[in-house]
Amino acid sequence: MRPGRYNALIDVAGLRVGHHTAIGLGFLTGTTVILAPDDGMVAGVDVRGGGPATRETDLLGPTASVERVHAIVLSGGSAFGTSAGSGVADHLAARKVGLRVGPHPDAVVPLVPGASLFDLGRGGSYTARPDAGFGAAALAAAIADVDAGEPRSGAAQGNVGAGTGAVAAGLKAGIGTASVVLPGGATVAALAAVNAAGSPLDPRTGSLLGEPWLLPGDAPDTPVPDDATRARLITITTPDVTGFDFNSSDEPTRPDLPTNTTLVVVATDATLTKVQCTKMAAVAQNGMARALNPVHTMDDGDIVFGVATARGPVPDPVAYRQITVEAANAVSRAIVRAMLAASSVSTPAGQWPSWTDVARGAL
Amino acid sequence: MRPGRYNALIDVAGLRVGHHTAIGLGFLTGTTVILAPDDGMVAGVDVRGGGPATRETDLLGPTASVERVHAIVLSGGSAFGTSAGSGVADHLAARKVGLRVGPHPDAVVPLVPGASLFDLGRGGSYTARPDAGFGAAALAAAIADVDAGEPRSGAAQGNVGAGTGAVAAGLKAGIGTASVVLPGGATVAALAAVNAAGSPLDPRTGSLLGEPWLLPGDAPDTPVPDDATRARLITITTPDVTGFDFNSSDEPTRPDLPTNTTLVVVATDATLTKVQCTKMAAVAQNGMARALNPVHTMDDGDIVFGVATARGPVPDPVAYRQITVEAANAVSRAIVRAMLAASSVSTPAGQWPSWTDVARGAL
Repeated sequence: MRPGRYNALIDVAGLRVGHHTAIGLGFLTGTTVILAPDDGMVAGVDVRGGGPATRETDLLGPTASVERVHAIVLSGGSAFGTSAGSGVADHLAARKVGLRVGPHPDAVVPLVPGASLFDLGRGGSYTARPDAGFGAAALAAAIADVDAGEPRSGAAQGNVGAGTGAVAAGLKAGIGTASVVLPGGATVAALAAVNAAGSPLDPRTGSLLGEPWLLPGDAPDTPVPDDATRARLITITTPDVTGFDFNSSDEPTRPDLPTNTTLVVVATDATLTKVQCTKMAAVAQNGMARALNPVHTMDDGDIVFGVATARGPVPDPVAYRQITVEAANAVSRAIVRAMLAASSVSTPAGQWPSWTDVARGAL
Repeated sequence: MRPGRYNALIDVAGLRVGHHTAIGLGFLTGTTVILAPDDGMVAGVDVRGGGPATRETDLLGPTASVERVHAIVLSGGSAFGTSAGSGVADHLAARKVGLRVGPHPDAVVPLVPGASLFDLGRGGSYTARPDAGFGAAALAAAIADVDAGEPRSGAAQGNVGAGTGAVAAGLKAGIGTASVVLPGGATVAALAAVNAAGSPLDPRTGSLLGEPWLLPGDAPDTPVPDDATRARLITITTPDVTGFDFNSSDEPTRPDLPTNTTLVVVATDATLTKVQCTKMAAVAQNGMARALNPVHTMDDGDIVFGVATARGPVPDPVAYRQITVEAANAVSRAIVRAMLAASSVSTPAGQWPSWTDVARGAL
């Protein structure tokens, strides 16, 4: 098995991805839109964290009637970030994309589930947070990306979109994505906005926990830390990070509550039912468990959306099982790739070094 | 047992209710805010319809960590109506109300679950729909109501707030509310925005299905229809309403899909846990089943929020059971009162007579 062309969610036929990134003037946050084909994508969800911030997720339940949604929005901004979805819905409606509910051209309801992660205050201001305009901008990026031919936004990783303000146990984290083409021809992919209370590191070695599930080509040019650097990585990711070189500041550096959340979308071009998408999402949570520890606590909103663009064949039970297994692996891979792609950040609220910068001795 | 002072949700100590109503220029819709005390209210939810439009409901799950929310938003506008919650959250945050996540004054996250019903197009335009400003306006109404002493907005019924564009099987419906003071002293109340595909009428008599559960004082001055009027009421509420006198119009009168949803909040001042609120909400769905038929289909988003302001004692198991039973009854009562309070409406998209106007021979 090998990654798809871009090793990204956009390898799934029909999907587009756009990021809106806000850095500076108190901002360190953003929004990511996963845009379906105009006729929608089949979708399910698995919410496993104890503190979710979501919109329009109930319609993804197995007993809810809607089969297809038109976009999924991941955002920073905690509960405020759900506003980004409103911007996406309004702009899709203006383009006449959505569930048709009548003959009038305006009679469309775009269905835009979404979830948000906690990054409030990390840019220096608690009020510099995503709004509906963030969703509209990320949607515009997704649309422009396709028009441009070679994707610019769609394959981006690191400090972009919903991952802009994301951190994981003291390290800068962000957006990661990965894909795989199965022997039967189906593509399976994941996109993760990694913002975990848990650590992405093996506490014995400082290596990234998800490494065992990487495919060739997933992590080119990854530095190999020496023993002293490994020890430093392990120290950074302990709960008490005061040993690290934070700037002093009157602004809040981190909230009183542990406040995290890893947001994931797994996708395939196979023809799955809504219930199969839901199950795929549930199985894919295992990919989070393998790359982060702890996960799914009462203090995060860990969530996986599962989507199918249904451009390929209906899988038999064996092929379906493989799709779910590779979806979980793609999540682990996407989390590793998010950590590798993240860039160190310094704001009035604090400093968050990236794994790569620490591992290669640059910080 | 008797109703509380206002026979309304605001009889539950600590709760405020505000409506924003938009009628004309294509609008026939609105938003209702149920505002908690500043320290929040314990909340749970039960989603039983197959087509829900919701925001921030996952955090109400028994395994999610948040115990208290700061407001609940009910709105017209289908999925677009979820935007109203963003306006409420932003304005609560500006007032520093919300979950405190750090020492900085702005470090608050208001938790504002909500749900929306389908009324798109009924005012004559599919694009005249609630936005964040609707939520802000309804919140302002809830706050102003308390400052005014005697509630104006809080006890309103009929074509107001989220019920402005609501209909039920061809009859105009809207907001209804009811309360009861239990022998032990606890108050239990419900507020419903009735927008059902199902009929609120006994198909044999044309009477309102929920009448058996009314308390004295619930339905003053209700007309008693004669046999011909009963037959007319039954005809109006059959699925085919073409026999009724609709205006002709090039605008869409009703969508292709059956599109409905009854939104309910049940509340008590007793001290309940989140799980008890969830169970109260689930039991209260039975009040919907008794007053509407069918309910909880794949084509509606029927939902009940259960909240407790926890100003009273912790109930023993017997008292808790009574709270849940009376919550269900309050829902039936609120639905009947919504139908009785609704006013007949005529828009470019159609005409919806009220039960009361038909029953008293005015239409």
